[in-house]
Amino acid sequence: MSKGKLTGAAVAQHNSRDSCWVIVHGKAYDVTEFLPEHPGGQKIILKYAGKDATEEFDPIHPPDTLDKYLDSSKHLGEVDMSTVEQEEKVQDPEEDERQERIKRMPPLEACYNLMDFETVARDIMKKTAWAYYSSGADDEITLRENHSAFHKIWFRPQILVDVENVDSSTTMLGSKASIPFYVTATALGKLGNPEGEVVLTRAAHDHNVVQMIPTLASCSFDEIVDAKRGDQVQWLQLYVNKDREITKRIVQHAEARGCKGLFITVDAPQLGRREKDMRSKFSDVGSSVQASGGGSVDRSQGAARAISSFIDPSLSWKDIPWFQSITKMPIVLKGVQRVEDVLRAVEMGIDGVVLSNHGGRQLDTAPSGIEVLAEVMPILRQRGWEDKIEIFIDGGVRRSTDILKALCLGARGVGIGRPFLYAMSAYGQAGVDRAMQLLKDEMEMNMRLIGASKIEDLNPSLIDVRGLVGGHHAPVPSDTLNLRAYDPLQAPRFSEKAKL
Amino acid sequence: MSKGKLTGAAVAQHNSRDSCWVIVHGKAYDVTEFLPEHPGGQKIILKYAGKDATEEFDPIHPPDTLDKYLDSSKHLGEVDMSTVEQEEKVQDPEEDERQERIKRMPPLEACYNLMDFETVARDIMKKTAWAYYSSGADDEITLRENHSAFHKIWFRPQILVDVENVDSSTTMLGSKASIPFYVTATALGKLGNPEGEVVLTRAAHDHNVVQMIPTLASCSFDEIVDAKRGDQVQWLQLYVNKDREITKRIVQHAEARGCKGLFITVDAPQLGRREKDMRSKFSDVGSSVQASGGGSVDRSQGAARAISSFIDPSLSWKDIPWFQSITKMPIVLKGVQRVEDVLRAVEMGIDGVVLSNHGGRQLDTAPSGIEVLAEVMPILRQRGWEDKIEIFIDGGVRRSTDILKALCLGARGVGIGRPFLYAMSAYGQAGVDRAMQLLKDEMEMNMRLIGASKIEDLNPSLIDVRGLVGGHHAPVPSDTLNLRAYDPLQAPRFSEKAKL
Amino acid sequence: MSKGKLTGAAVAQHNSRDSCWVIVHGKAYDVTEFLPEHPGGQKIILKYAGKDATEEFDPIHPPDTLDKYLDSSKHLGEVDMSTVEQEEKVQDPEEDERQERIKRMPPLEACYNLMDFETVARDIMKKTAWAYYSSGADDEITLRENHSAFHKIWFRPQILVDVENVDSSTTMLGSKASIPFYVTATALGKLGNPEGEVVLTRAAHDHNVVQMIPTLASCSFDEIVDAKRGDQVQWLQLYVNKDREITKRIVQHAEARGCKGLFITVDAPQLGRREKDMRSKFSDVGSSVQASGGGSVDRSQGAARAISSFIDPSLSWKDIPWFQSITKMPIVLKGVQRVEDVLRAVEMGIDGVVLSNHGGRQLDTAPSGIEVLAEVMPILRQRGWEDKIEIFIDGGVRRSTDILKALCLGARGVGIGRPFLYAMSAYGQAGVDRAMQLLKDEMEMNMRLIGASKIEDLNPSLIDVRGLVGGHHAPVPSDTLNLRAYDPLQAPRFSEKAKL
Amino acid sequence: MSKGKLTGAAVAQHNSRDSCWVIVHGKAYDVTEFLPEHPGGQKIILKYAGKDATEEFDPIHPPDTLDKYLDSSKHLGEVDMSTVEQEEKVQDPEEDERQERIKRMPPLEACYNLMDFETVARDIMKKTAWAYYSSGADDEITLRENHSAFHKIWFRPQILVDVENVDSSTTMLGSKASIPFYVTATALGKLGNPEGEVVLTRAAHDHNVVQMIPTLASCSFDEIVDAKRGDQVQWLQLYVNKDREITKRIVQHAEARGCKGLFITVDAPQLGRREKDMRSKFSDVGSSVQASGGGSVDRSQGAARAISSFIDPSLSWKDIPWFQSITKMPIVLKGVQRVEDVLRAVEMGIDGVVLSNHGGRQLDTAPSGIEVLAEVMPILRQRGWEDKIEIFIDGGVRRSTDILKALCLGARGVGIGRPFLYAMSAYGQAGVDRAMQLLKDEMEMNMRLIGASKIEDLNPSLIDVRGLVGGHHAPVPSDTLNLRAYDPLQAPRFSEKAKL
Repeated sequence: MSKGKLTGAAVAQHNSRDSCWVIVHGKAYDVTEFLPEHPGGQKIILKYAGKDATEEFDPIHPPDTLDKYLDSSKHLGEVDMSTVEQEEKVQDPEEDERQERIKRMPPLEACYNLMDFETVARDIMKKTAWAYYSSGADDEITLRENHSAFHKIWFRPQILVDVENVDSSTTMLGSKASIPFYVTATALGKLGNPEGEVVLTRAAHDHNVVQMIPTLASCSFDEIVDAKRGDQVQWLQLYVNKDREITKRIVQHAEARGCKGLFITVDAPQLGRREKDMRSKFSDVGSSVQASGGGSVDRSQGAARAISSFIDPSLSWKDIPWFQSITKMPIVLKGVQRVEDVLRAVEMGIDGVVLSNHGGRQLDTAPSGIEVLAEVMPILRQRGWEDKIEIFIDGGVRRSTDILKALCLGARGVGIGRPFLYAMSAYGQAGVDRAMQLLKDEMEMNMRLIGASKIEDLNPSLIDVRGLVGGHHAPVPSDTLNLRAYDPLQAPRFSEKAKL
Repeated sequence: MSKGKLTGAAVAQHNSRDSCWVIVHGKAYDVTEFLPEHPGGQKIILKYAGKDATEEFDPIHPPDTLDKYLDSSKHLGEVDMSTVEQEEKVQDPEEDERQERIKRMPPLEACYNLMDFETVARDIMKKTAWAYYSSGADDEITLRENHSAFHKIWFRPQILVDVENVDSSTTMLGSKASIPFYVTATALGKLGNPEGEVVLTRAAHDHNVVQMIPTLASCSFDEIVDAKRGDQVQWLQLYVNKDREITKRIVQHAEARGCKGLFITVDAPQLGRREKDMRSKFSDVGSSVQASGGGSVDRSQGAARAISSFIDPSLSWKDIPWFQSITKMPIVLKGVQRVEDVLRAVEMGIDGVVLSNHGGRQLDTAPSGIEVLAEVMPILRQRGWEDKIEIFIDGGVRRSTDILKALCLGARGVGIGRPFLYAMSAYGQAGVDRAMQLLKDEMEMNMRLIGASKIEDLNPSLIDVRGLVGGHHAPVPSDTLNLRAYDPLQAPRFSEKAKL
Repeated sequence: MSKGKLTGAAVAQHNSRDSCWVIVHGKAYDVTEFLPEHPGGQKIILKYAGKDATEEFDPIHPPDTLDKYLDSSKHLGEVDMSTVEQEEKVQDPEEDERQERIKRMPPLEACYNLMDFETVARDIMKKTAWAYYSSGADDEITLRENHSAFHKIWFRPQILVDVENVDSSTTMLGSKASIPFYVTATALGKLGNPEGEVVLTRAAHDHNVVQMIPTLASCSFDEIVDAKRGDQVQWLQLYVNKDREITKRIVQHAEARGCKGLFITVDAPQLGRREKDMRSKFSDVGSSVQASGGGSVDRSQGAARAISSFIDPSLSWKDIPWFQSITKMPIVLKGVQRVEDVLRAVEMGIDGVVLSNHGGRQLDTAPSGIEVLAEVMPILRQRGWEDKIEIFIDGGVRRSTDILKALCLGARGVGIGRPFLYAMSAYGQAGVDRAMQLLKDEMEMNMRLIGASKIEDLNPSLIDVRGLVGGHHAPVPSDTLNLRAYDPLQAPRFSEKAKL
Repeated sequence: MSKGKLTGAAVAQHNSRDSCWVIVHGKAYDVTEFLPEHPGGQKIILKYAGKDATEEFDPIHPPDTLDKYLDSSKHLGEVDMSTVEQEEKVQDPEEDERQERIKRMPPLEACYNLMDFETVARDIMKKTAWAYYSSGADDEITLRENHSAFHKIWFRPQILVDVENVDSSTTMLGSKASIPFYVTATALGKLGNPEGEVVLTRAAHDHNVVQMIPTLASCSFDEIVDAKRGDQVQWLQLYVNKDREITKRIVQHAEARGCKGLFITVDAPQLGRREKDMRSKFSDVGSSVQASGGGSVDRSQGAARAISSFIDPSLSWKDIPWFQSITKMPIVLKGVQRVEDVLRAVEMGIDGVVLSNHGGRQLDTAPSGIEVLAEVMPILRQRGWEDKIEIFIDGGVRRSTDILKALCLGARGVGIGRPFLYAMSAYGQAGVDRAMQLLKDEMEMNMRLIGASKIEDLNPSLIDVRGLVGGHHAPVPSDTLNLRAYDPLQAPRFSEKAKL
């Protein structure tokens, strides 16, 4: 037994609500008193009481979490890991199949678009991680509408324009970028890749693409900034804490570390119910929940709720001047969803807005960013305000045609989130690299094909938005009996036997 | 042999149209003369002639039925049930599979929304019970449109509103409720649960939700009122009897027992044809029907017809003043389906209307309540009549977003029926409890997400109804040959064999 | 060997193009010279050269065909059928399966609507017969649109109307009928039932429904009129022959035999290409066609072409006065498809029009009758012409709601064709009887539910046609990759093993 | 060993990047220095280094390619093919299945429409050839919209018009044709048939149909012109070379050889990304690509890119007068996609435009030609310019109804491409012959059915375009949970066992 180290057996005795120790990265912590405060609920901690919780802990807590939130008196010191009993892995046929699929993964070169990464990721990611990334609010109608809405906009390409040289570079919030999309903030990067968000930082650097750093990252903020190279541009995404002093510290630290924009999330006074995520969580800790009896309502609601209890639901327009007073970074409201609020943002001197529904993760049947954009821009132009504010959108962007449609409407840039997470989860940095390169290849070609050689050439005359501005159609439910009675036309049939 | 009791053998001799006895709850009844009057037809009684009919009798007859409708001279007294030959159950593979499924039911905690209860109920309910609850008119287009219509309305959420404290309580017909939905009237609760409607009464109490008591309940009216606790609010749903004295007695009894609203059903001068129900009935008594020969038209039309022959198809606007004269309860017309009739209701001093198509069970391609609401409210507001009458809707409500859309348009509250029946059928009171709690959780969150902290904050500017007011689209039938000739794009393929 | 009768062996020698005899109903005919004139092509006759052709002959030739079209010198007299070699039936697995299905047919009582008959008929009819009845033009888009269009019209039901007594009887072209639909003309009734169209005549009598007699019936015109009972009403459908004398004879004969209306088909200068029919024909005589070599274009185009070569494609408006001069029957143009032609019909003193696309069998993407009706009626009303002409529609009528929608718009009556053929093919007269009774039951109920007690109460305020008058929507093709990448929400899962 | 011929062994030694010889049609070539210039990339050549490359070479290089592009010093002379080691064919189960399918192919007579050829071709063509022909840009939405758009146009047929004699002949660019469609230019005909484009030439002759000769044909231009017979009409499709002298030589040569029109492609400054094509290519040379490691971005992008690197992306309106100066042929811009560019073409004295999106192969969500036509024609008519220019469309034409709709709108003719390739690939010239005959048969019939006896009778009053001009509808994504919870209506069930 190593000198001064705790033994696994010693820790294992503290395996109850009355005394609960856990091991993380080889050190033991007494979390008994912290149990009721844990944002993710007690249950998940108690599952690891007396045991090594590192694997579960890592993706959803930045490395500095224990130092920050647990009094040093509760840090019990190192554990001799050789004495810790290895949890015998339960035989899990689903997990076995997943491991089998990983061995048969398609090579990276077989991914030709951003959906391809999603398809591969779905089959090789851990079920809970996939559920957290991919889930949306309620029936996931907005989640899908986000991409579907782009298909309601069609091009009006112009021909016989000299497009030998095409340049897709642009400026967003005063910073240059090679292409008008940015990596938007998404939480818990280590669910998909053990290195987490820094993988995105490196790929963004190589493509001269802006990265927005998420509040709920798996890596710490400083780790992500440390991964920056050269004059790479980063922005900060902010969930506003109930404790404004914490918020102020975060903002000013980000500015000091060189962040070039502050994106305040305004569409999440409460993080959404995402049933795919909840259902995956449920089966994960299923047995104990079942034991709790059918009568009570179980409130464990997936990863989203676990990590967001600090967010302030009372945040309001009144707080804006205070933000303007504590930072010189351009301030952007992320999650604006209607014209009235864009106009108010202009009036309050806000630098930008992201028209966004949080990737369809918050309120179902909220409109897509691209639809709100189509409503906002004509009104801004009518008032002569189109240059007073930079308009971004995110949600559902998968093709360079999507980006071009947004820019033709008047957006300054678009955010892309999940696709890079999927590329990273499936293929690491090489995946993100290829995803970005595919977008750039598409961009160059499609600018040629609509007859635009630079970003400034993009304008509303190049698109047809009539399909978008007529409201949301849900067709009449079809009549099953009649459809099934119908005998569809047949194509010519191949014979059963070969001809002689 | 027990003294003074009839023997099974004695009863079994009366097994024909000429002399027909049946046993219900251990007592024998002579129903020979009643056969031609039975609203559900003779056939179903004759199936049990000379036998114990309790299991079939119970769900569709309130306990006081035999006392009310069969002269006491036909009450033959108790039967020694130990002498009654047990019907040997026919081996029924479908029923065996159902029993098997019941053993494997998902735990209640695995239900995250109201559709989940429906899915579970479909697999574990008796086929005839499921058919009665779930069926709709003709092709069930209106049945499905009812929910589908909500998807044509999209939100216009407002941001940066202080939503720390959210209150969803409201007042309907002068009574307080914790949330603006009520349990609407649905028939034959014991088809889904042996205790019947009182289960809903108890759950409604626990959530401070209003319950509407159905005329066609399996429990008697008084049983349901007796199950009320504290100042719990109940309303009465009324099918108007051809004999107005009976109607008057029912209404005044309800008022005396504390009912706070009278909902007169006006969309059912005749109960609808529901083919799913008819088809399930058919196979239930299939053999004898087949024996009756193919030539004649069989008129047995499911449970709906069996229980509704007393309803008066001559009910008209002329009867309204009479209702107003016999009760002080607020009077609401349930089943209004066009603007003109809402205006007429206001003019006649009616207190409220339910815009409803009877859950899609009556006239197929009747419009959804939410669509009629979108047409009615602007006209009421134009006349300054929006406070002269309370507007409710029912049909297809499954999510709190549905409720919010109705309230933004101007509804006072919404009725929910089948989902609670399904929850009750699958999980009993705990199921109903969870269903209501899920709606409340969704409600609190979604009010935050659209930026409303109380019911009064809901207004038309928060929604986009353009998709709803443009009529019903049925797309052009697709061309089979071309669609089948098309070779869809493929995602990257996993290799057949694992890489080495 | 019977005295004076031909032997099978004698007939069998004439089995080639040079000398071709066939047996029909026990008599031999020399058709050698007739071969090139046969409207259905030589090939089909040559298949039976020297053999008994009765089974193939019957459904598509009225009994008087041979007398009419083959010179008596070619009538060779009776054949001793006992000497005719029985064709050894080729083993046909499809036919065996069909015979097996016939044994397991659902009982008639299991059919609850008109689609049910179609579903049963599809599975038990001979393949070629099914193909002839069910096929439509090109991609069968209009065929399906015909019914689909009704779903674009929704009701605006009125409540609190006294509907105790409902009467659906009406008058069409001066004749009374119990209900505003008629049996429209359809060809080749014996393909579905050995008795042919007289089955429809009998059922129409029992329900007091008008029957339109088809030119291309399997029964002769007189057989169908002979089957009439009492004051039963029949109309004549007319394909106009290139030889006007023949046409005149047919029309005046019909009038003399009591027909009460003349329906001139105007949508079929050439009978449509129906690929389902052509394909079924092809495989029927497949081997010989294949032998003919791949290079030449095969022109055998199914039953439709075979029977229609006499129709005059030069028929035009100029011919109308001549028709008016040869008969006193009301004249109706069947197959009108646009407003301009309805107006012209009024101007020429035509008594009625059927807005029809020939059941989707002629021109694909021709509009449905109900859509043309919605366009025509407001214009007629605007001119005050709505009583100058009776407007009928046919195509896609399957429910009484469909009939009600047409009548609310302004139609006098609707034609129903295929559904009665399917009912007859599956269940004979009892099937047609039940089909009509189902429509009547639906009609009574649905008139109650929209608040109409008699046909005159039906009017445009009871329906919402906005969905119909906005043109034909074909949605944007969906993006396969994205849809397949999407991981749909799951319902609660039943466990694999039963709980203990 | 044959005197003076190279041996296979001698060639096989030059199998590397350092010295790379290949055999084509029995002759050896030294392509070492050419490797870096090969438009299709080095990889594909190196696969055949030292080997016989004829099979791969043939379809994508016209016969004169080696003479034109490889210096004669690199032509090494004949090879004794008997000494060349036969590549042992790798066992390929997919290819074996294809060969098996070819043996069971449907006879030509079983194809009743143009989609049928596509269905057969898909199953019997080589996978890479199918991928090249059938692929479209990105998600292939425009590819499918092209045909789908025709279904948004419906007919308004007129009746009682004398249509005994129907004539579909017309004049396009001053040349007569039997029917208003032409064979449009498509690349690489030998992928589908070893004879290549001359097969189309012969079939076009037999039907008096115009053929457009593609720049990227497998046959050389002169071969295709040589195959012309009599006064058969041919046009030239032109990709403009960066070297204008080459372009001038091509154009003037075509004019000298009798071409009657010059179609300059303007929608392809860069050939589109077609993922189906790329993916098929990928698996074809899959192993080596995989070996190249996951990190780098593979730029091999299918056949389209390989053959198009010479196209000039700087082509612009400024070049038009130069074209007008070098030829007297009528000049047509192929690939115009918006009104503004049609108007500009008129102003510049251009003779015609093809409204086209390149068969959906270039920019996804570009509009269909038929939609642009519906927008263009009213504006041309308003300016009185409709006779100043001939308007053609292509893309998605499959039925004569499609052709009729375009002509009713105002098109002079329509181009058809892929369907003839599919017919040729499946059945050779007989297939193309039948495809053209089917269109002619449909055309004659459908002109009758809409009441037009000659091309001049076609006009906008015969169609309803409201469905086309309202923009592109993508319906609201459906709610999975609710749809799956719904229990669809059932048709009558056949019993499991036969009745006794």
